[in-house]
Amino acid sequence: MTSKWGITLFNNFPNCIKFLDTTLRDGEQTPGVALVPENKLRIAQCLDELGIDVIEAGFAAVSKGEFEAVKLIATQGLKAEVASAGRGTKNDIDAVIDSAAQVMSLIIPTSDLHIEQKLHKTREQILKLTAECVTYAKSHGLKVDLLAEDATRSDFDYLLKVFQIAEACGVDRVTPCDTVGILSPDSSYDFFTKLVKIVKVPVGVHCHNDFGMAVANTVAGLSAGAQVAHGTINGLGERAGNAAIEEVAVALHTLYKKQLRIRTELLYSTSQLVSRLTGVNTQPNKAVVGENAFKHESGIHTQGMLANSSTYEPFPPSLVGRTRHIAQGKHSGSHAIKADLASMGIKPTEEQFQEIFQQIKELGDKGKNVMNADVLGIAENVMGLSGVKSIELQEMTFSGGAKTAAQASVCLCVNGKTVFGTANGVGPVDAAINAIKDVIKETEAIELEQYNVKAITGGTDAVVEVVVNMRKGHRIVTALGIHEDIVKASMDAVISCINVLTTDYSNTNTET
Amino acid sequence: MTSKWGITLFNNFPNCIKFLDTTLRDGEQTPGVALVPENKLRIAQCLDELGIDVIEAGFAAVSKGEFEAVKLIATQGLKAEVASAGRGTKNDIDAVIDSAAQVMSLIIPTSDLHIEQKLHKTREQILKLTAECVTYAKSHGLKVDLLAEDATRSDFDYLLKVFQIAEACGVDRVTPCDTVGILSPDSSYDFFTKLVKIVKVPVGVHCHNDFGMAVANTVAGLSAGAQVAHGTINGLGERAGNAAIEEVAVALHTLYKKQLRIRTELLYSTSQLVSRLTGVNTQPNKAVVGENAFKHESGIHTQGMLANSSTYEPFPPSLVGRTRHIAQGKHSGSHAIKADLASMGIKPTEEQFQEIFQQIKELGDKGKNVMNADVLGIAENVMGLSGVKSIELQEMTFSGGAKTAAQASVCLCVNGKTVFGTANGVGPVDAAINAIKDVIKETEAIELEQYNVKAITGGTDAVVEVVVNMRKGHRIVTALGIHEDIVKASMDAVISCINVLTTDYSNTNTET
Repeated sequence: MTSKWGITLFNNFPNCIKFLDTTLRDGEQTPGVALVPENKLRIAQCLDELGIDVIEAGFAAVSKGEFEAVKLIATQGLKAEVASAGRGTKNDIDAVIDSAAQVMSLIIPTSDLHIEQKLHKTREQILKLTAECVTYAKSHGLKVDLLAEDATRSDFDYLLKVFQIAEACGVDRVTPCDTVGILSPDSSYDFFTKLVKIVKVPVGVHCHNDFGMAVANTVAGLSAGAQVAHGTINGLGERAGNAAIEEVAVALHTLYKKQLRIRTELLYSTSQLVSRLTGVNTQPNKAVVGENAFKHESGIHTQGMLANSSTYEPFPPSLVGRTRHIAQGKHSGSHAIKADLASMGIKPTEEQFQEIFQQIKELGDKGKNVMNADVLGIAENVMGLSGVKSIELQEMTFSGGAKTAAQASVCLCVNGKTVFGTANGVGPVDAAINAIKDVIKETEAIELEQYNVKAITGGTDAVVEVVVNMRKGHRIVTALGIHEDIVKASMDAVISCINVLTTDYSNTNTET
Repeated sequence: MTSKWGITLFNNFPNCIKFLDTTLRDGEQTPGVALVPENKLRIAQCLDELGIDVIEAGFAAVSKGEFEAVKLIATQGLKAEVASAGRGTKNDIDAVIDSAAQVMSLIIPTSDLHIEQKLHKTREQILKLTAECVTYAKSHGLKVDLLAEDATRSDFDYLLKVFQIAEACGVDRVTPCDTVGILSPDSSYDFFTKLVKIVKVPVGVHCHNDFGMAVANTVAGLSAGAQVAHGTINGLGERAGNAAIEEVAVALHTLYKKQLRIRTELLYSTSQLVSRLTGVNTQPNKAVVGENAFKHESGIHTQGMLANSSTYEPFPPSLVGRTRHIAQGKHSGSHAIKADLASMGIKPTEEQFQEIFQQIKELGDKGKNVMNADVLGIAENVMGLSGVKSIELQEMTFSGGAKTAAQASVCLCVNGKTVFGTANGVGPVDAAINAIKDVIKETEAIELEQYNVKAITGGTDAVVEVVVNMRKGHRIVTALGIHEDIVKASMDAVISCINVLTTDYSNTNTET
């Protein structure tokens, strides 16, 4: 498996690569995201555990709550250094000093566009401002990282002048920001190679993702000798976000064999915490932490996976604290479906299996997302195993209102017997599911792992897709409910799951 | 704005860059995605309009429906060439021949790992198989693109042998696949530089995104002389997906100034169609096509944007068929909030404005996602403008069931008068919204633009966040409803939106 071509051209990495996480500052600037100080602290503690070197906790001058959040985090005695961002004004620097942050990310623009059109200043004024701000911040005991805003669209010689003046005033680190993400890996390498030759203090890399290249640009910058990678968990941040810390870390570890302080096995749980607290979910096809990153469906792939997992995985999921998942679907191979049937005690003959397999393909061709419940239904049908379905919905009604609890009644056929149940809930969905639980004793051992409603868009009469994961012991199954009414969609999904989980043909001779 | 550093090291681009889109093949292998032939056709037509050169329409041998889909697309007379993927078996090649596709993407593995562990064959057998398959496919009039699976983990000299044998048999193009995404931009450049020196036919670049570098690797491969970029819309595909066509195209256009056949202004609508039909949404911070890619919230940014939009945008949103959006939030600057108030005819004094501004910040500090309705509420409170709220919910009840339509009744206070309404709907949410519409004449001019439920996860009693965009004329406002009951959350959001849209203080003297 050695490849003779695998020469990395970019290989002037520093001896030690550090990470600055700005999830709580640049990441929080994602439109619609606002974190209360307690949640900022939870994320900071998690980042500290992860092995981040500098945690940018917020923008102390932006508001009272933001100031409190920075202070709260800065006074926890974390292993990581705590930084606060601020602009080049006395007010902003004072807020950082008062917040007890050890480091200030001092943001000063260096491109003519930003200097002239945003600040209405001149290059000379910015040089003077830089010197004053760095001197003032340093004299108050702050470590200063100068973040040159829009540095990659700045005149390079002028940018160097700004950095050199900052160095003369005692700056601790300089970070040219690729504010609108216009670097590419080759220009990033070139840019940082030139910069680190001249600048004496450590250099940071701060990349935005407007062209989808933030991670590659960050790695290229480091490989040219920059020492500190800036980034955010899940690549959060304004517009297309910042470089995703989890991708940069795993690329450095796996592709460039770099030793890092990052505990990669905590990357997934950190990503999940950030998703939950910010309300911004990653897309399924997000690298490293996306739902599908270690999920395999197509036949070619699952067959390979079962032989040797590295055929279709560049690194084991455990590296980032995850597990592998073989999904059923239109592209499923026979190996995966056989394993699923076996877990329900179903052992078809080869002929029956071919028919089951064919029908699953056909279902997929119709555009249906094939789930465990479908595999079971088809197998039962093909093998004449009907009648063992434990639960069927006969009728369900619900009601509720603005000033009253929701309630639902269900009439179910459980193993051939009609039973009734009723329950309250926070809303009609909750009430209906509670009503099922009310009558089904067996469901006590069954837990709802995840209740997920796919983004409903369009109108209030749009088709709702409810995906439910339910667990019994170690077994997790997934079912889908589709309906314009979220209550009915939810009922369908839950009942399908329960039916799959309560199916056990192992005491029946299913081999015919 | 000229930068003196901006040297691109990678600059051996071919004269003409082509695009092969595999959204309908590799993209459809995303777990949970299955497209019916009609929807595949709609996407293919859209890709053809977009200017894609080769549309990989599916995997003809995988199922009957898949075969029909390829045939349907291949016989439309599209400007693009239509390709079908297939493995190196007579059965798969025959399926491609019968499907009427002009091109076959012939997938043959070249790494020892895949050859030995997945196929249980030898290198020699694969060489022979390659020769046989290319010869057979060519003799039936197919154009053949040889996709060497796991090529980047293959022995380079052996890979060359496979390509050379294929060339001898008349192959039209060879594409080394980075099957598990292990290239980095520098190794990609190196790899393709070596390859294009030796291979005589055009070379494709097919990158996967496991380390988040697929786009950069694709661009690097092209800049080394490869001619055809493979990719998918929205970066769909198994695991972390493939290179996102929209990002590759915009990077080539904007950063490398390449002339492309791609009509970039259609990228957003194409992305939206693919999201809708596959059910896979992009994350808000996805480059080019994500919800936030041209949305600005923070004060520094919006202030810059209002002066000159290029301060915080690398390219104008119109390049990809989009518009800019200034969002309200914790990081909002005073400029954006003043503009929002003005649109409701509210003109606070400077003192009042400072108070409003402060309260918005405080709301953000509490972790609240500040929306138009909050801005209005705060302004009314600060300026003593209460009593003009047009609608208030007094009571609402709903009911429904498995076998009956849902219905809802509302009691609203509209401009101080109590009114009643009732309506049916596909579910309780739809019924409740319809009941409001039933009584509010004014809402006839108000349209629900987007009804969005954020991923509900955890349990059926989880807090539901409903975000509603409503439009009246050119004005779009956003409101949020949060409740454990989706019906109540939806009602809150809709009523908030209507109240903001019907607010007009312009005939009142709000300047005090």
